[in-house]
Amino acid sequence: MNTEDLSYIIDTLFLLFSMILIIFMVPGFAMLEAGIVRTKNVSAVLTINTMIYAVASMTFLLVGYKLAFGTWENDSVSKWAAFLFQMAFVGKTVNIMSGGVSERTRIIPLIIFTIPMAALIYPLVVNWIWGANMLEGTFLDIGGMHDLAGSTVIHSTGGWALLAAIMIVGPRKGRYVGDAIRVIPASNIPLVTLGALMLWIGWFGFNGGSVGSIASKENADAVALTIMNTNTAGLAGAIAAAAIVYFQYRKFDITMILNGALGGLVAITAGADLFDIYTPIVIGLIGGTLVAFAVPFFDRLRIDDPVGALSVHLINGIWGTLAVGIFAKEISLMAQIKGIVVVGVFAFVVSYITIFAVNKIARFRAGDDEQMEGIDVVECGLEAYPEFKRAF
Amino acid sequence: MNTEDLSYIIDTLFLLFSMILIIFMVPGFAMLEAGIVRTKNVSAVLTINTMIYAVASMTFLLVGYKLAFGTWENDSVSKWAAFLFQMAFVGKTVNIMSGGVSERTRIIPLIIFTIPMAALIYPLVVNWIWGANMLEGTFLDIGGMHDLAGSTVIHSTGGWALLAAIMIVGPRKGRYVGDAIRVIPASNIPLVTLGALMLWIGWFGFNGGSVGSIASKENADAVALTIMNTNTAGLAGAIAAAAIVYFQYRKFDITMILNGALGGLVAITAGADLFDIYTPIVIGLIGGTLVAFAVPFFDRLRIDDPVGALSVHLINGIWGTLAVGIFAKEISLMAQIKGIVVVGVFAFVVSYITIFAVNKIARFRAGDDEQMEGIDVVECGLEAYPEFKRAF
Amino acid sequence: MNTEDLSYIIDTLFLLFSMILIIFMVPGFAMLEAGIVRTKNVSAVLTINTMIYAVASMTFLLVGYKLAFGTWENDSVSKWAAFLFQMAFVGKTVNIMSGGVSERTRIIPLIIFTIPMAALIYPLVVNWIWGANMLEGTFLDIGGMHDLAGSTVIHSTGGWALLAAIMIVGPRKGRYVGDAIRVIPASNIPLVTLGALMLWIGWFGFNGGSVGSIASKENADAVALTIMNTNTAGLAGAIAAAAIVYFQYRKFDITMILNGALGGLVAITAGADLFDIYTPIVIGLIGGTLVAFAVPFFDRLRIDDPVGALSVHLINGIWGTLAVGIFAKEISLMAQIKGIVVVGVFAFVVSYITIFAVNKIARFRAGDDEQMEGIDVVECGLEAYPEFKRAF
Repeated sequence: MNTEDLSYIIDTLFLLFSMILIIFMVPGFAMLEAGIVRTKNVSAVLTINTMIYAVASMTFLLVGYKLAFGTWENDSVSKWAAFLFQMAFVGKTVNIMSGGVSERTRIIPLIIFTIPMAALIYPLVVNWIWGANMLEGTFLDIGGMHDLAGSTVIHSTGGWALLAAIMIVGPRKGRYVGDAIRVIPASNIPLVTLGALMLWIGWFGFNGGSVGSIASKENADAVALTIMNTNTAGLAGAIAAAAIVYFQYRKFDITMILNGALGGLVAITAGADLFDIYTPIVIGLIGGTLVAFAVPFFDRLRIDDPVGALSVHLINGIWGTLAVGIFAKEISLMAQIKGIVVVGVFAFVVSYITIFAVNKIARFRAGDDEQMEGIDVVECGLEAYPEFKRAF
Repeated sequence: MNTEDLSYIIDTLFLLFSMILIIFMVPGFAMLEAGIVRTKNVSAVLTINTMIYAVASMTFLLVGYKLAFGTWENDSVSKWAAFLFQMAFVGKTVNIMSGGVSERTRIIPLIIFTIPMAALIYPLVVNWIWGANMLEGTFLDIGGMHDLAGSTVIHSTGGWALLAAIMIVGPRKGRYVGDAIRVIPASNIPLVTLGALMLWIGWFGFNGGSVGSIASKENADAVALTIMNTNTAGLAGAIAAAAIVYFQYRKFDITMILNGALGGLVAITAGADLFDIYTPIVIGLIGGTLVAFAVPFFDRLRIDDPVGALSVHLINGIWGTLAVGIFAKEISLMAQIKGIVVVGVFAFVVSYITIFAVNKIARFRAGDDEQMEGIDVVECGLEAYPEFKRAF
Repeated sequence: MNTEDLSYIIDTLFLLFSMILIIFMVPGFAMLEAGIVRTKNVSAVLTINTMIYAVASMTFLLVGYKLAFGTWENDSVSKWAAFLFQMAFVGKTVNIMSGGVSERTRIIPLIIFTIPMAALIYPLVVNWIWGANMLEGTFLDIGGMHDLAGSTVIHSTGGWALLAAIMIVGPRKGRYVGDAIRVIPASNIPLVTLGALMLWIGWFGFNGGSVGSIASKENADAVALTIMNTNTAGLAGAIAAAAIVYFQYRKFDITMILNGALGGLVAITAGADLFDIYTPIVIGLIGGTLVAFAVPFFDRLRIDDPVGALSVHLINGIWGTLAVGIFAKEISLMAQIKGIVVVGVFAFVVSYITIFAVNKIARFRAGDDEQMEGIDVVECGLEAYPEFKRAF
C-alpha cells in the first residue's frame, strides 16, 4: 500500500472517530440545558436541541458546506468524512444561542433561525478563516488569524448570536423584579453534570480532529498534544472556578465548576495545538476565572442567560483567541484581534437583523402566561416528568 | 509491513471501534425505555435490558455465532474482533421485542426467551443472509437480498418477535377500556432523549462497521458514505415526524420526533452503502412519516406498544429493505421482497411458538395486581425513584 | 512509510481512542454514585467526582507521571498519548475510595487527599509494577507479577484506601442502630444503570489499551481477545449475581446485578490478555458471586459502603490477581500473592496515615446535623432536584 493511500485510510478513520466524538455533544448540550432549566421547560429544551441538530445538519448538507469550502472535493481524505467532521460543528453555534435564551423562547422561531445560521452566517465565517476565503486580499481578510477549532469561528459566533437574541427576547418573566435578581435553581444536577462531561469528551474530537491528519509522526504528536492541552485547560478551568466560588461563598457550586471547565475548554480551542504543558494551565485558569466573574457580571447588567453561555462561549471565545496572540510567538496578536472584531461585528449584526426579522414572522418570546405554564405543556403538549410531584 | 498485515491491523481497530459504538446502544435502549415507561416499571425495564445483554451475548458466544457463520476462523481481521462486532448486534433483536411489551411482562420469561433467540432464531436469519447460508441453492435461498446492517436481519426479526409477543401477552391493564384509548405519558423525557441520541450514535458503528473493512481507499469512502447516509436519514426522519405532528396537533411531541429519527435510521440500515446524498433524505423522510402514522394506527388496532417499536423497527425494517430494491438499480426488488417474506414468516412463526411454549413454563403476563403495584416492587424488590413523591 | 513510523501513528491513534473510552468512566462513576446515594447528597457526589478528575489529573501531570515512569520520553508512540492513557487511570483510585465513604464525608478533605494519592501513592504502585520499578532487585520487588490493567494496581489500591477511610470516617448516621441494619435505598436507578454501563464501556479502553500496541497481527489479536475476555467476564458477573439474588430473595435486584458485572470486570482486569473463551467465564462467575456475598458480609461487619466498592474493587481486585496465578500456567501464583500483599500493606498503611493526617487538618466526617440536612445544601449550597417533592 503506498503512503498516500495509507494516509487517506488512516485519516478517514481518524476524522470519523473525531466526528462521532463531537456528536456526543448533541446529547451533551441537551442534557446540560435540560438539567439547568426548570422542569416545566425541559421537554422544550430537548426538542430544540434535537431539532437544531436535524435542521442545522440538513441545511449544511444541502447549502452551507459548499458555501464554506467552495467544493466537496478532497484529495487527502474521504470527502464524505471531511463533510461529516465539519457538519458535526455547525449545530453548536445555534446550541449556544438557544441555551442562553431558554425558558422564555418559543420553539418555531429557533428552528427557523437555525436555517440562515447553518446556510449562511456560520458558513461565511468558516469560509473566511478555515475555508475558501472569499475575503482574501481585501482589507477584511482575516485568513491570517489562528483559530484551530473555533474559539472565534464557533464559540464567539454562537455567543454574539446569543447576545443579539437576548437583546430582542428579553429576560425570563420574574427574573428581574425592581432591584431584585431572582435566582432560579437548576432542576436536575445529575443531568447538568452528565451533559457537561459529555461535552468535555466531545471536545477531544473537536480539537484533536481539527489538526486534520494523524498520518505522520509529526501529526500524531500534534493530535495527541492537542488533546492533552484541551484536557489540561478543562482541568484548570474547573479548579479555578471551584476555588473562586469556594473562597467567595464557602460552597462548591457544581454548576459553576462545570461551567469553569467548559470555559477552559472554549479558551484552549483556538490554540490547543501550539503549546506545551504549562501554557494551557494558565489559559484554563484564566478561562475558569472569567466564567466565575462573568456570570454574576451579566446578571448585574440584567442580561438573563440561564446556562451561562455568554460567559462560557463568548467571553472565553474572545479570551482564547487573544491568548494565542499573547502566548504563541509565531502568531500576530493584531491578526487575532482583527479576527475577533470582524467576526464579532458580522455575527452580531447579521444575527441581530435575522433574529429581528424572524421575530416579525414568528415571535421569539413566549408570553407571560406561556412562561408561567411552561413551554413544555404549551408547545410540546407533554410534561418532562409527569409523575413527579412538584415542590413548587 | 505488508499490505495484508496492515489491512488486518487497521480493520481490527476499525471493527473494535465500531463494536464499542454499538455497545452504547445497550445504555441507549435502556435509557429510552426507562424514560418511556411509568416510574413503577423503570427498574424492571433496566433489569431486562441488562440481562438481555448478558444472556444474549453469552448465548451467542457459546452457541449462536458458530451456527450463524459456520466457523470462528477469519483471515482478513482478528477473529475475536469479528466475533465482538457480531455479538454487539444480537441483543438488539430481544431489546426491540422486550421494549414493546414492557409494563405488563414479567422478567423471567423474557430472560428465558433470550436464549433461543440468541442461540437459534437470530443466528439462523444471519446464516441465510450474512453467514454460511445453509439455504443456498434451495427455493428458500435469500442470499441475494441486500441488507447491509440489518433492516430485515435485526429490526424486522425483532419486530416480528414483538408482534408475536404482543398477541400472546396482550395490552397493559387499563390501556383500552371499552372504546377508549388511555394515553400513558412517558415518565422521564430527558432519559428518552438521551437514550435515543445514544442509539443514533451507536448506529454509526452498526452501519459503518457493516461495510466490514476500511483498509482501502474505496472502502474508506464506502464507510464514510455509509455513516453520512445513516446520519442523513436520521435527520430526515426527525424532520418529517416533527412536521407531521406539528401540522396535526400544533405541538412538538419530542417522543414522536425521536421515534421519527429512529425510523429513518432503521430504514437506511439496509442500503446505507448504496446511495448518494439525496436518496437517504427521501428514505428518511418516508421513514419518519411512517412512524408518525403507524403509531396511532397500531393503537387503533389495540396493539399496545409503549415504545413504538413496531412502528420504528418492523414497519421501517420492511420499508428500508424495500427501498433498496426501489432506489438501487443493481438490486432486485423481488429478491428484497423474498427476503422480507421468508424472514418474516420464519421469525414470526418460530417466535410465536417459542413465546407460546415459554409462556406455559413461566407466564409472560404480569397479573392485574402486579401491574397495578408495578413490576419494580413485585419483581425487583425496589423502586426506581423511592424518594420522589408521585403525583399519581 | 516505514513500519516504525506506521506503528507509531497507529498506536498513537489506538491509545488516544482507548484513553477517551476511559474518560467515559468519569461520568460513569459520577452517575453510578449519584444514583445510589440519597437525593440530599447527589450534588456533593457529583462535585467530588468532578473535582477528583480535575485535581488527580492535574497532579499526575505535574508530579505523579514522572515518578511512576521515570521519564516522559517514549519511542514507540507519541509521548503525549502515552501520558494521556496513563492519566485517564489515576482518578479511578480516588473514585473508588470516595464512592465508598459517600453520604457522610465532606468535600474538602477528599480533594486534599486526592493530591498525595495522585502525586505519590498511586504513582509508586505503578512504578513498581508497570513503570521504572525502583524496587527492582530488592526483596520487595514485585515486578514479576502480571497485572494487565490494574486489578491490583488500581482496584485494590483504591479499595485499600477505601477501607482505611471507612475505619476513620465511620458509617453513615442512622445506618447501624443497635442490632439493626437500616437499608438505605438507591435514589435513582436509571442513573445507577447508566453509570455502570458507561463504566463497562470504559473498561474496553482500560483493558484493551493496556496491551499497549495494536500495530502487528499478534497485537491486534491480543487487543481484540482482551476486549472479548473483558466483556465476557462482565457478562458472567452479571449472570452470577442475578442468579444468586434471585435464588436468595426471588427478586432481581438491579443494583446487585450491575455490581456483579463490575465485579467480573475488575476480576478479569489482571489477566484479560491471557485466556481463551472459557476461563473469563469462570473468573467472571466467581467475581459476580463474590460481590453478591461480600456486600451483605461487609454490612454484617458494620463496614458501611453505600456503593459496594469494597466488594467490587477490593475483593475482586484480589481475586482477579490470584486468578491469573491459578489459571495461567506461565504465571507464578506466588508472584501474584507477593504483589497483592506488598501493594496491600503499602496502600492500606500509607492511605491510613494520610487520611488520618488530612483528618486533623480538615475533618472528613460530616456532623450529624450536616448528614441530616444533606451534604448538598451544607457544602454545595444547592439541591440536586429542588423542584421534586420528597416522599421522605
